[in-house]
Amino acid sequence: MRATLIHGPRDIRVEDCPDPELLADTDALVKVTAACVCGSDLWPYRGVNQIPKPRRIGHEFIGVVTEIGDKVETLKVGDFVVAPWANSCGNCPPCRNGVQVACEHRAVWGGTDEHGLPVDGGQGEAVRVPNADGTLVPVPGVGNPDEALAKSLLALSDVMGTGHHAALGAKVAPGRSVVVVGDGAVGLSGVLAAKRLGATRIIAMSRPADRAALAREFGATEVVAERGEEAAAKVRELLGGVLADSVLECVGTAESMEQALACTRPGGALGFVGVPHGHDPLPISVLFSKNISVAGGAASTRAYLPELLEDVLSGAINPGLVFDTVMGLEQAPEAYKAMDERKSIKVMLVP
Amino acid sequence: MRATLIHGPRDIRVEDCPDPELLADTDALVKVTAACVCGSDLWPYRGVNQIPKPRRIGHEFIGVVTEIGDKVETLKVGDFVVAPWANSCGNCPPCRNGVQVACEHRAVWGGTDEHGLPVDGGQGEAVRVPNADGTLVPVPGVGNPDEALAKSLLALSDVMGTGHHAALGAKVAPGRSVVVVGDGAVGLSGVLAAKRLGATRIIAMSRPADRAALAREFGATEVVAERGEEAAAKVRELLGGVLADSVLECVGTAESMEQALACTRPGGALGFVGVPHGHDPLPISVLFSKNISVAGGAASTRAYLPELLEDVLSGAINPGLVFDTVMGLEQAPEAYKAMDERKSIKVMLVP
Repeated sequence: MRATLIHGPRDIRVEDCPDPELLADTDALVKVTAACVCGSDLWPYRGVNQIPKPRRIGHEFIGVVTEIGDKVETLKVGDFVVAPWANSCGNCPPCRNGVQVACEHRAVWGGTDEHGLPVDGGQGEAVRVPNADGTLVPVPGVGNPDEALAKSLLALSDVMGTGHHAALGAKVAPGRSVVVVGDGAVGLSGVLAAKRLGATRIIAMSRPADRAALAREFGATEVVAERGEEAAAKVRELLGGVLADSVLECVGTAESMEQALACTRPGGALGFVGVPHGHDPLPISVLFSKNISVAGGAASTRAYLPELLEDVLSGAINPGLVFDTVMGLEQAPEAYKAMDERKSIKVMLVP
Repeated sequence: MRATLIHGPRDIRVEDCPDPELLADTDALVKVTAACVCGSDLWPYRGVNQIPKPRRIGHEFIGVVTEIGDKVETLKVGDFVVAPWANSCGNCPPCRNGVQVACEHRAVWGGTDEHGLPVDGGQGEAVRVPNADGTLVPVPGVGNPDEALAKSLLALSDVMGTGHHAALGAKVAPGRSVVVVGDGAVGLSGVLAAKRLGATRIIAMSRPADRAALAREFGATEVVAERGEEAAAKVRELLGGVLADSVLECVGTAESMEQALACTRPGGALGFVGVPHGHDPLPISVLFSKNISVAGGAASTRAYLPELLEDVLSGAINPGLVFDTVMGLEQAPEAYKAMDERKSIKVMLVP
C-alpha cells in the first residue's frame, strides 16, 4: 500500500509500504477513506521536533473495517469508523475515567504498540488498529459518506473534540463570555464548541478574512485582529470593561498562552489544548493572584465522540467546514506545504 | 494602642501606635478581641520576603465594631465581626464575581488603602477597616464568644476559607479520593473542608503526632509520613493502584507542588493555595500530558464566610482546633517563634 513518511524537516514522501496485517486478536484493519494533516504534524515538519529517522505520520483517519481479530466485540467487517487521534484500550483506569490519552496500553499511530510492534500512521491507505474495541467508533447507518459528511466525521478524530476539550477546560456555559486564541482548525473548532455549549458572546482572535469568516459562521460574535496588550484591551472594551470568563488557548506557544492569560478575568477559566512549545512552564504567580483556573491538555476525543457524532449526524454542527482543501494522498507533500504557509486551514487527504 | 510590627527577619515588636480613626465614610473601627499569626507571615519573618522598613503586620482578626462611617449600611456599633484576610469593596466586577482578592479598591492590612492612607495590621488592639460593608461579616447573636467559638470564628478569617478554596479547586466531591499536601493550619483546614464537602477517602501527608492526630479528627482516613516518590507510591497503594482524584497543595514550595502533581491521577484536579515561593512557574507539559487541572490561588474567604459561619455556629465544623496555643498580644514575638519552629500549629493572640 501507499503511505506517508516524514524523512526530515520539510521532507514528506508518499511511499510503498507493507500492507498491514492483524498482529493481535484485539486488532482491526481499517481501509482509510480519508485522513488529514494536523497542526501538530507541522512541528516536526518545521524542524521544531527532532526526527531521528524516517517514520510514518498521521493520526486522524476515517474508513471501513476490513478485518477484525477474534477478540474484537464491538466492530464488524464493513463498519464505517472514526479513529480518534489517540489509541486507547478502553479498560484501564485512565480510560474508565474518560482520560484515554493517558491509556496505560496506548499504541501510537506511526509508532509502536505496547508490545513494540509497528503501528501504521493515519496518512496512508490502510491502518492496523491495536485496541480496536477501545479505540474505533462505528458510525451507524453510514455506508460511504459524501464528502461533506466525511469532512465532519474526520473532524471528530481530533480538531472538533480538541476544541470541545478546550471549551470544557475553560468552563464555557450559557451566559459566560468567551475568547478563543488561535484561528487554526482547533481554534475554529473551539468557537463551534463554545457556541454548541451555549455561549452567546464569543470573541475570536483572527486576521485572515477566510478564517474570520469561518469563525463567524461557527458562532463568533466578534473577531479581534489586534495582538498582545491591544487585544486584551479590545476584549475588555467589547465586554464592557471586564475581561473574559472563559478563554481557549489553541496554539501552544509562549505568546499565545500569554495572550490567553491577559484576556482572562480574575476568577476566570483558561482551557488550553495547544501542544506546549516554548512556554513550559506556566506563571503560577499570575494564576495565584488572579485566581485563574487552568485545565485541558491533550484531548481524549474518544470520550467526546459519541455526543459529537450525534450532533454531526443530526446536522446540528458541521465541523467539517475546517477542511477548505481536499487533495489525493499522493499530494501529501503539497498538503503540508499549504498548511505550513497558512494557505489552507486544514487539508483532507483522500487515498 | 498597642500593635505588632515587623522590623526585619526574626524581629517582631509590639509597640505603641496611634489609635485608629475614621478616615472615610465607608470605614469602620474594630476593637480586636483576637488575632493570629499566619503561615504567610513567616515568609518575611524568615527573611524570604524583603522588609524595606518596619511595618505593621497581621491580616486575620475578629472583634467588635466601635464606630462606623456615615455610609456604612450593613454594620452597627456593637456588632461582633469576622474580618477576612483580604479587604474588599464588594461592588467592583471581581467582588461581584466572588473573587474579592482581586478587588479593584482593595486596602491592605498593615499597608495602605486605595487612597494611600495607612491601614492597621490585624495583630493589634484596633483596626480601621476601609470598605467596611464589603469586608466585615457580622456574626448574628454573638456578644462575646467563648474561647472555643472565638477560635473557630478567627479560623474563618483565613485558614478555613483557604482550605475550602483548595478543596473547591481540587473539585472535591462525594466519591472522589483526596490527598492533602501540607499539615500547617491551612492543610489541616483543607482536610476538614474535604470532609465537609463529602469526601470519604482523605489522605493527609503529615509526620508530627499532634498534626496527624488533628488531621484524623478533621476527617483524614489515612496519614502518610513518606515524602517524594515514596509518598506517591504509598498513595497509589492505598487507593488500590491509582492516584488521587483531588489533591490540595497547601504549602507553596517547589517540593510541595511537585509532590502534589505526583499524587494526582490523569484527569485529576489540583487545588493550590500555598503562596508560591520558588516554584514559579508550573510545568505545563505535565499538566498537558496528564490532563491535570489546576485551580486555586489566593482565597476569597469573604465569599465563603456566610456558609462556613453557618456551619461553625451550628457546631457542624470546629475549625478553631487548629489553634493549639493562645498568647497575649505582647507575646507576639514568641508566637512567631513557636510557629517558625513548628512548635505550634497556629497561635491565637489576645490583646
